Order: sequence, then structure tokens, then C-alpha cells
Amino acid sequence: MNETARLETFSDGVFAIAATLLILEIKLPDRGTLTHQLLHLWPSYGAYAISFITIGIMWINHHAMFEQIDRINRTFLVINVFFLMVIAFIPFPTHVLAAHLHHDARTAAFFYGLTNVLMATAYVCLWFYAARGRRLISPAADPRMVSGISRAFLPGILIYTLATLSALISAWLAVALFAAIALFYVLESSLFGRS
Amino acid sequence: MNETARLETFSDGVFAIAATLLILEIKLPDRGTLTHQLLHLWPSYGAYAISFITIGIMWINHHAMFEQIDRINRTFLVINVFFLMVIAFIPFPTHVLAAHLHHDARTAAFFYGLTNVLMATAYVCLWFYAARGRRLISPAADPRMVSGISRAFLPGILIYTLATLSALISAWLAVALFAAIALFYVLESSLFGRS
Amino acid sequence: MNETARLETFSDGVFAIAATLLILEIKLPDRGTLTHQLLHLWPSYGAYAISFITIGIMWINHHAMFEQIDRINRTFLVINVFFLMVIAFIPFPTHVLAAHLHHDARTAAFFYGLTNVLMATAYVCLWFYAARGRRLISPAADPRMVSGISRAFLPGILIYTLATLSALISAWLAVALFAAIALFYVLESSLFGRS
Amino acid sequence: MNETARLETFSDGVFAIAATLLILEIKLPDRGTLTHQLLHLWPSYGAYAISFITIGIMWINHHAMFEQIDRINRTFLVINVFFLMVIAFIPFPTHVLAAHLHHDARTAAFFYGLTNVLMATAYVCLWFYAARGRRLISPAADPRMVSGISRAFLPGILIYTLATLSALISAWLAVALFAAIALFYVLESSLFGRS
Repeated sequence: MNETARLETFSDGVFAIAATLLILEIKLPDRGTLTHQLLHLWPSYGAYAISFITIGIMWINHHAMFEQIDRINRTFLVINVFFLMVIAFIPFPTHVLAAHLHHDARTAAFFYGLTNVLMATAYVCLWFYAARGRRLISPAADPRMVSGISRAFLPGILIYTLATLSALISAWLAVALFAAIALFYVLESSLFGRS
Repeated sequence: MNETARLETFSDGVFAIAATLLILEIKLPDRGTLTHQLLHLWPSYGAYAISFITIGIMWINHHAMFEQIDRINRTFLVINVFFLMVIAFIPFPTHVLAAHLHHDARTAAFFYGLTNVLMATAYVCLWFYAARGRRLISPAADPRMVSGISRAFLPGILIYTLATLSALISAWLAVALFAAIALFYVLESSLFGRS
Repeated sequence: MNETARLETFSDGVFAIAATLLILEIKLPDRGTLTHQLLHLWPSYGAYAISFITIGIMWINHHAMFEQIDRINRTFLVINVFFLMVIAFIPFPTHVLAAHLHHDARTAAFFYGLTNVLMATAYVCLWFYAARGRRLISPAADPRMVSGISRAFLPGILIYTLATLSALISAWLAVALFAAIALFYVLESSLFGRS
Repeated sequence: MNETARLETFSDGVFAIAATLLILEIKLPDRGTLTHQLLHLWPSYGAYAISFITIGIMWINHHAMFEQIDRINRTFLVINVFFLMVIAFIPFPTHVLAAHLHHDARTAAFFYGLTNVLMATAYVCLWFYAARGRRLISPAADPRMVSGISRAFLPGILIYTLATLSALISAWLAVALFAAIALFYVLESSLFGRS
């Protein structure tokens, strides 16, 4: 296989597994009728959707990053392992958030947000390591595209940090912000795809 | 990797993991002799088989779709993430169905069917986004093949909706219909393969 | 991707996941000192090893099969889904076997063997569907190689059936035979690789 | 697919799944406030990080190995299955270590170390089988690179054995050594990547 192909295969594996494992965190509460139980699980469905879409968006971005990159080195591989370590961690805070929306909700939302901040930070490190001085960038890559990606990714850390801090005021506000960020990236991706 | 290859790798990962995770939902009831327990689990085996075959068929159809598609854009990637979100959800309603065939069976079958309706809908969205005006269709694709796929996929939503509504009358009827739909697609696939 | 590549990717995913999920079935008994618990788990380690090697061997054989095959059709895809359904099932009987070696052992070994018989049968169906009349066989494939694979696979059903029936006499005999079959295929593979 | 590609796909699958399954072993203790519970889990986070990075490093090394290898045989496939069997086992000792850092810690650290020794041994077998007499090495591979890899891998067994034995004196010492080894390989990889 060529240099970047195997990195992409391994990364896609972790993305796909982390996203699919999310479902294992949804469990019936075993109290009341089945209809009641299934309806009562709505925070789990919501957390599942937000996390799945977040991982999906990160996969799309990772995909976009590799359209600009045509070689790798061991430092880049190592940063990518750290990045994937955060992605693979997501099912845990997702479960914590879903299980504590009625109790200790602010702590749960803060913890969930912290993971997102870490994810955005690892992602920015990955991209800037590759893009700085066009270290791993393909000679054929359009400079405007490269700096466009840089501009798009950097604010992610700040946005996730603000959403995380908002959890200290209200868990519901934070969750609404997490959903809004996921939705924004979905729309931005679609609009971006049209241009 | 080329444009569609990585999308296929990621999707195949989610299909493969969702199908394989189904087994984690089968657990021994820990009552009676082991023979009794293993026989008593037949609803779990049945639900496992129906869901595994359903996911397998969806994978085959996804595969057939990509024989006609030769490029992607970000909107298509996003729709695909939504589609995979439903595929990855399947182990949960499968477990609910297997665990409630003797109790609250109609609710469980209805919930299972709802997931299938969602899955068929997401799939139709994915295909029609690609096929409309041949947006992402390969120039080499046979127009009869493309319209043939369109004709084959659209009724899926209606068929799954009817099977889901039948759960309100009888869970057994609904489960029989889910199995019949899976079997029909298996046979249709095989016959289709012969022509 | 080419025709067979995506089938191989999906199948490899199921093989890899089924093998890796085996570990989730190993759980500490939570009685006695940790040393005692870890030693007490030996049936789990043994079952893990036998099943992992069995899945690994099936993967190697699937790999060898695809060196002779250069095209697929939908019937073949469907048979492959059935075959993978059995592979993905293996973690369950492995857990049953590991958990019941001291109690109801014959039932557990019989159930484990039954899964192996099913696996060998599905595999033989897959191969003979492809090989009959060289339906999907590459024109470049050596006829002696093709008939050699046919001769090697067919006895698998009988061997696993006999090992399964031996469980009715003694669970230990059956487990020893399962281990011996796995070991035989490992050695046969290695010797085969040298010629 | 070409000869080595499918082996790499399957191996990458096992690496990715084993790493991602680690998260399933982290579970809230369900005692005290959520903040307390999340903080109390630090041994789980630590064990998760060490094991994830270890698996990531092994994946990077496997990747480096395959840059020198251009063909495989069945014996090599079998050794690779054994190696992956150890990789897929890692989530279990990781869970044991995380759950017993306050109780029976030396046993847990020793068991964790034993798995690492096994992993290093299987890896060395894999490499030396391929490299001996340049059996599977690409004609284009630089002999200095090949002997450089040999020199780098062999001490791994000794280093992990010493760290494992140190668990008999102190669990904390052993864990510190496991972390130091992972960190060393991370740094070595990065420096190696710069040259």
C-alpha cells in the first residue's frame, strides 16, 4: 500500500468502531412498561446522535485533510495516534452525559465538553504539523485550500471551550451548544460541498 | 486513495461492526439447565439472523450503488453519515425485540420496524441525492441500471412502514413480515445476480 | 474499488471484529485473590485461543480462496453474508464453552461444535458455488490448485461433525479435538506455505 | 488486492478494534458524586492511555515492517495471527490493571507486563521470520534499514521482561516503567521520523 493509505485505513477503523460502539452504551432502564422505557431513553438517543455526528464530521475533516497530504512521517503517525486516542474515548463521556442529564448534569456536560476540546486540540496539532511550511502537503495542493482549512479548524478549540464553560452555568445550554456546533458543521460541510 | 474508496472503507467498517456487535446482545438467561437456556434463546437467534441479513443486504445494496457512482461531495458524505447512524443503531432495537417477544412484544416489534423505516428512508435519500440529474453518477453508468435501482429502492420505505404498522395488530405478524422482507431481498439479490 | 476488493474489506472487517470481540467475554469471577481469579480463568484463555486461531485460519483460507477468484455476483455476496453471520456468532458459543467447562460441559462443547459444523458448511457452500464449473474462478488460476482447495475443504464438515458428536461422550475429548483441529490447520498452513 | 495488502487490512482491523475496545472497560463506580467518580477513575484513564499508545506504537512498527516486506507465505500469516491474538488480548489485562491499582496491584501489574512480554516476543518472531535470509524482504529494501529494525526490536523482550519483574517489588514502579517504555517509543518514533 502507499504511504498514506494504511494510515487512512487504520484511522477509518478507529472512527468507524468508536461511532458504532456508541450504541452499546444505550441500555433499557428495566423499569415501567417498555413504551415508557423507550421514551425515557431520549437523552441517550440525543447523546448518541450528537456524538455519532461529531465523529462523522471529524472523519469527513480527516478525509479532507488527506486530500492535501501526500506523505507522512513517524512524528505525524504519533500525533495521529494521540488524536485517535481522543476519538476512541468519546463513547465514555457520551454515556456519562446520557446517564446524568437528570442528576449531576453540569458535571456530565462539562466532562463531555472537555473531551471535545481535547479532540479539537489534537486535530489542530495534527493539521498544523502537516501544514507548517507545507511539511507533508502535496505539491499539487492549492495554497488557498490549505490556508482555508487552517482558518476553518483553529476556531474549533475556542468554540468547544466556550461551550464547555457554559456547562458550569447550565447543562442544557451546553448540550444545546454541542448540538448546534454539530449541526453547524453539518450545514457548513454541505454548503462547502456545493461551492 | 481515490475519492470514493475511503468512503467505502469507512462505511464497510460501520456495516461490519454493527453486524458483528449484534452477538454481544445475546446473553444466557442463567436460569434452568444450559440446554434449556440455549433453546430458550431462540428469539435472540432469530433477531440476530434477521438483523445480520438486513445489514448484509444493505451492505450489498450500498456496494451496488457505488458501482454507479464515481465521485462524491461533502453533502453526500453528510447524508452517508446519517445513513450509517441508523445502521449502527440496529443492535439496540434488535436486542429490545429479542428480549421482549414474550412481553410487550408489539411495542418491541414496532420500535424495531421504526428503525427499519428510518434506514430505508436514509438509504433512499442517499441514492436520490446521487442519482438526481446524475449528480454523482459515473458517465459510463447504464441509464437503465440507474433507473432500475431507483425503482427497486423506493418501495422499501412503504414495505417497511406497512410491516411496522402491522406490529400494532400482532408482533408475530410483524416479525414474520420482517423475516419475509429480508428473505425476499436475499432471493431477489440472488436472482438479480443470475440475470 | 475493483469487484472483489470491497467484499474482501467487508469480510476482513467481520473476521477482525469477531476475533477481537472474543476478549470481551473474559471477565474476572470476583471471588478469591486476584492471582486465584486469573488462574481460575484458564478455560476462558483456552477458549479464546481456540476460537481466535479458528477465526484466523478461516481468514487465511478466505484469503486463499480469493487468490483464485477474480469476479463476484450477487448470489455469491449473499452466501458470503451467511458465512460471515456464522463467523460473527462464534464469540457467543466461545463464552458458553468457557463458562461451563465445570458444569453442563457436554452441552456447551456440543453447542460450540455445532457452530463449527455450520461454519465449515457455509464455507464449503461458498467455495463450491465459486468453483463449480469455474463460475467465478480466474482464467489464470491453476486447475490443480482449484481442485486441491476443493479436496482440502470438504473433509472439514465431517471432521467438525465427529468432534461435535464426541461431546456427547466427553466434553474434554471434544475440546481436545477442537484444539487439535485448530493446531492441525495451523501446521498444515505452515507446511503448505513451505512447498 | 495484492499479497500484503489484505494482511495489512486485517491486521489494521484488529489493531484498531483492540485499541477502541479499551474504552468499554472504563465504567463509572456508581458511588459518590459524579465529580468524585470521574476523578476516582484516574487509574482507568492512565491504563487506557498506556495501552492505547502501546497498541498505536505496535501498529506503527507493523507498518514500518511492511515497508520492507513485499511478499508473504502461509507460515508468516499464521505467525501474524498469533501476534494479533496477543494484541487483541490487551483490553483484558488493561482492565485488570485499572481495577486493581489499590488492591492486589502487584499481581495486576505482573499480569499486564506478562502480556507485553508475549506481545514483544510474538512481534520479534514475526520480524525475524520475515527477515532471516531476507526470506520475505523486498529486493529494494536497504540492508542497513533491515538490520536497524532487527537491532531496535530485539531489546524489547528484555525491557518488557525487566519491567514485568519489577512488579514483584512494586506495582507503581512497574506502571511507571510501562509508561516510560511507551513514552520512549513515542519519542524514539518522532526522532526517528526526523532523520
